[in-house]
Amino acid sequence: MKPFKVVAFDADDTLWVNEPFFNEAEKSFCILMEDYLTHQSISQVLFKTQIDNLPLYGYGIKGFTLSMVEAAGIISKGTVSPKIMERIIAIGKDLLTKPVELLDEVEDVLEELKGKYKLVVATKGDLKDQHRKLHKSGLGPYFHHIEVMTDKEEIDYQKLLGRLDIRPEEFIMIGNSLRSDVLPVLELGGHAVHVPFHTTWLHEHVDHEIVHPNFTSIKKLNEIKDILL
Amino acid sequence: MKPFKVVAFDADDTLWVNEPFFNEAEKSFCILMEDYLTHQSISQVLFKTQIDNLPLYGYGIKGFTLSMVEAAGIISKGTVSPKIMERIIAIGKDLLTKPVELLDEVEDVLEELKGKYKLVVATKGDLKDQHRKLHKSGLGPYFHHIEVMTDKEEIDYQKLLGRLDIRPEEFIMIGNSLRSDVLPVLELGGHAVHVPFHTTWLHEHVDHEIVHPNFTSIKKLNEIKDILL
Repeated sequence: MKPFKVVAFDADDTLWVNEPFFNEAEKSFCILMEDYLTHQSISQVLFKTQIDNLPLYGYGIKGFTLSMVEAAGIISKGTVSPKIMERIIAIGKDLLTKPVELLDEVEDVLEELKGKYKLVVATKGDLKDQHRKLHKSGLGPYFHHIEVMTDKEEIDYQKLLGRLDIRPEEFIMIGNSLRSDVLPVLELGGHAVHVPFHTTWLHEHVDHEIVHPNFTSIKKLNEIKDILL
Repeated sequence: MKPFKVVAFDADDTLWVNEPFFNEAEKSFCILMEDYLTHQSISQVLFKTQIDNLPLYGYGIKGFTLSMVEAAGIISKGTVSPKIMERIIAIGKDLLTKPVELLDEVEDVLEELKGKYKLVVATKGDLKDQHRKLHKSGLGPYFHHIEVMTDKEEIDYQKLLGRLDIRPEEFIMIGNSLRSDVLPVLELGGHAVHVPFHTTWLHEHVDHEIVHPNFTSIKKLNEIKDILL
């Protein structure tokens, strides 16, 4: 008998495509601003603006859009045209209306786990946007609930466990970010499974190898069945 | 014995000051844009932009700031200066760092109810911002948890009751918005108490009188004790 009561899935780039849409948006932003700086420098200013704003805005598309507006002012040294500002707002709105593309094997895996564990989504980002995506994904019925967290640090997982009323060792988290989905959960005494996605936001990178008895790395989501079934 | 298991409080303008900060921000926006239109017309464009964007952005400061950016483009017919855009971003950031001013009698009332009911905060808006405010308010320890809802319609309350695992008649909601805190709760079969605040966002207005056996209107939060104690 497996010791887990709750199986939690990260959402963006674990259940459905996310980072490629942000990359695409960033590319559009670079093209908009290319009269001022190289694409690489534009990306650097945008990244710095985003990181500086994280404590205030948190994660998600609205904060990203506001950071683009602010970065446009910095990159152009206060000469950016209103037309470009309009396009930046449009890039943000476009992100908020992207279709939800499920990753491979997601439905198959959920179908197999259904009824055997309490399944939850544990994600960060804009509350409204994550609910929209879960709704659009059609995956809602598989999950007991969706937990949109302000951040995914140890304290946030601690609160989640409190709400779920379970002990850490009864919790297993599956996600594509070592920083957000794996390390804080292991710290707490929970279990974590890493399923890498082909592209990860720089902010989520971890530059050391993780070796821990409660940690597993798999190549494809499907392999989670070997752990859970 | 009172039939209630959970007493839920709206947050903005029920526990702490909110709308006056938005009014102040709107005033600053009007002053920024007054070369183009009258304050009244500027407010009208901003309101329309906000309402049009609600399905996409939801409630909260980040969406409000993005709507100001967009409205500035509309009001200036695409001629707004980057300097003004910078100021708009600053207005938004200022809102996100406002102090939390508790309303009268809030702590006293919570102190009296503590331990007698499960107390929760049920609010809409930005997830991160509402958590920030609860933390800053110092009221966290009184509450079992904070529920940040994408909206406050009947379906959202239904989900909340599901998560709390209670029947509607065991639930009583206290808040300043007839539209968000009272009507949907009464529809569901729950109880609701209205505590008016001196200023309410136009979008929250209800233009008919509410007469319902589960509804009470009080003038000051303190009067809630007559209902609950």
